[in-house]
Amino acid sequence: MHDIDIPGALHALRAKRPLVHHITNYVTVNDCANVTMCIGAAPVMAEAEEEVQDMVSLAGSLVLNIGTLSARQVDSMLLAGRKANELGIPIILDPVGAGATPYRTRTAQRLLGELDVSVLRGNAGEIGVLSGAGGKVVGVDSQGISGEAASVAEAFAQKRGGTVVISGATDIVSDGRRTYLIDNGHAMMAKVSGTGCMATSVLASFCAVGGDHVKASVSALACFGVAGEDAARQCAGPASFKIALLDSVAALDPSTLEIRAKVRRA
Amino acid sequence: MHDIDIPGALHALRAKRPLVHHITNYVTVNDCANVTMCIGAAPVMAEAEEEVQDMVSLAGSLVLNIGTLSARQVDSMLLAGRKANELGIPIILDPVGAGATPYRTRTAQRLLGELDVSVLRGNAGEIGVLSGAGGKVVGVDSQGISGEAASVAEAFAQKRGGTVVISGATDIVSDGRRTYLIDNGHAMMAKVSGTGCMATSVLASFCAVGGDHVKASVSALACFGVAGEDAARQCAGPASFKIALLDSVAALDPSTLEIRAKVRRA
Amino acid sequence: MHDIDIPGALHALRAKRPLVHHITNYVTVNDCANVTMCIGAAPVMAEAEEEVQDMVSLAGSLVLNIGTLSARQVDSMLLAGRKANELGIPIILDPVGAGATPYRTRTAQRLLGELDVSVLRGNAGEIGVLSGAGGKVVGVDSQGISGEAASVAEAFAQKRGGTVVISGATDIVSDGRRTYLIDNGHAMMAKVSGTGCMATSVLASFCAVGGDHVKASVSALACFGVAGEDAARQCAGPASFKIALLDSVAALDPSTLEIRAKVRRA
Repeated sequence: MHDIDIPGALHALRAKRPLVHHITNYVTVNDCANVTMCIGAAPVMAEAEEEVQDMVSLAGSLVLNIGTLSARQVDSMLLAGRKANELGIPIILDPVGAGATPYRTRTAQRLLGELDVSVLRGNAGEIGVLSGAGGKVVGVDSQGISGEAASVAEAFAQKRGGTVVISGATDIVSDGRRTYLIDNGHAMMAKVSGTGCMATSVLASFCAVGGDHVKASVSALACFGVAGEDAARQCAGPASFKIALLDSVAALDPSTLEIRAKVRRA
Repeated sequence: MHDIDIPGALHALRAKRPLVHHITNYVTVNDCANVTMCIGAAPVMAEAEEEVQDMVSLAGSLVLNIGTLSARQVDSMLLAGRKANELGIPIILDPVGAGATPYRTRTAQRLLGELDVSVLRGNAGEIGVLSGAGGKVVGVDSQGISGEAASVAEAFAQKRGGTVVISGATDIVSDGRRTYLIDNGHAMMAKVSGTGCMATSVLASFCAVGGDHVKASVSALACFGVAGEDAARQCAGPASFKIALLDSVAALDPSTLEIRAKVRRA
Repeated sequence: MHDIDIPGALHALRAKRPLVHHITNYVTVNDCANVTMCIGAAPVMAEAEEEVQDMVSLAGSLVLNIGTLSARQVDSMLLAGRKANELGIPIILDPVGAGATPYRTRTAQRLLGELDVSVLRGNAGEIGVLSGAGGKVVGVDSQGISGEAASVAEAFAQKRGGTVVISGATDIVSDGRRTYLIDNGHAMMAKVSGTGCMATSVLASFCAVGGDHVKASVSALACFGVAGEDAARQCAGPASFKIALLDSVAALDPSTLEIRAKVRRA
């Protein structure tokens, strides 16, 4: 049992159609743009230092995804992020590959240190490394969750503030006080490049509506997971799964979410 | 009624298979490459200052799309564009997001000022801003058309020369003297990221064959719109629509275009 | 008849799931990531000079693909490549568009000159130019093979060392001593952007397992070709073909490969 109005959150998102500003990697950027549209928001990708402050000022939320980071891109992330903080626009950070190289770990730590990040979303390995709990990252698509992940998320959220999300077979959302587990989703989601990045974009879309970030995160992950379940029934392999996943996000029926969302308090 | 030989234009394009040089954004670049191949041309993406002049010299047309612009990329656009002008190779400019930030507006204006742009293609908001008629751009995927758009396109084309194209439910093509309206297409095209960019690539493919740019633009938009109508009958949502759209572009049957193209003089 | 255990190579790849580090173009990078996952390896894309040496140290192989090269990216390729050579990690070079501009040709030659490249994979035009045999490149997707391509591959491999692969209707793999021809594949593969880049990623996945590069290359191209044949039976056009191609790569059944692989010694 839980106390989050997921159908209402999706209705509100579709009604508002907020702009979600992404500074993200060039591998999965098209998937991020499309999933943002499918869930009901409007994506914009922009990373020139000449415009990121203006662009983020128009947005409901800012995604920072370090999947293919560069020194210049990190500068733009900091510029956009400071402006977002100044205006109270939530920042969602996806620390792709943190732990894989010192540069990625250091950059994720720097963004967390210099910006007020509303939601940090990664897999168990990435969050493990950033929280100091340890972690092992094989590839940027690696998924896996340890039994202690919920307490890692909770403790890290308490320590740094904001919301921490660990994606895996069971997704975890915690602000250090409230911790939710989401059991939606499908194993096919780990067979395709970009589902982690897409989860971050969906999450940012819900956060762009305003309101509580824990509730927005739980709503986002439940919706994305339910869409994954629908997609798995229609696909012939990983690539047709991704197509069906996007179609299923667009086709999400709020009236079924109350029954289908598998959300519980930890 | 109209006087444009659309089937003939598509036949000529497929027979010539011209090279279309793109300097474009990293969000929809794969869609642009594939739609260019599907319509019958050969795409090449290259933006290093060391090679853009050589590359454009091999091409039948040059696409400049500012969707994820940077200072370095704009320099390459100017280098390639000046060479294209020198060689009489048509430039097609897609001012993605003009009006959203001053940098985008300024850059689009600079490209229009320093280069001889053969065709400027955008949505009503982008062209509204650049023409001075005003405009409001919510997201880069926003589509919408005002009743006065045709006169905006006409007046702007008269003022600056070249052809102006405004995409929307009804597409508008004008060189200030002749103005055409195209009623093909489908509402699903606004649900997917990249259909605007893809329209620009198709348009550039037709312009690369040589000949009149108004006729090439009308032919391109009618073909792309007819493919959109075909795709809408085969899809389960936005992502499968995009796949069907590309397949439908490749499957376009010239012999049906004379009947299916909904083209009229304004 | 041939002496290569293709089913065994695919089994070993899927069992090891090696990391394949890509420094590649932004047009087809998503296809490369997904085909790498579908064949059974783990892709990572990283090109910041701050991290490429660390990243390649974790990898089983390194892909260098110059499809959208820049001066900065070439510097990163050299940094990563020297580290790969130092650690004995195989480098797979895809000289996209060599011959189209002097910069591309020069850069491909520089990478071949400064790095020990294990496998060079391109189309007949690209390899023709680099080997000095001559070549004509119309677009980066152009495919075509001359009757003398096998001897070009053989002679070039003898001269420079390593393995040379020429993709086409018949693929050629030679290390100068052994030359194999692979007759799998389908004409649809030339209708989609990125199948050449994807072939390179599949090839790098097999090379990342360790062992003989000629055998790995032949196994990779036979597998990718068989998947292409499967995909062609399920598609409605180029875009649905690409989706089916990725699904078919993931669905490859090792037990059928011995019969379906059309491999012969030249």
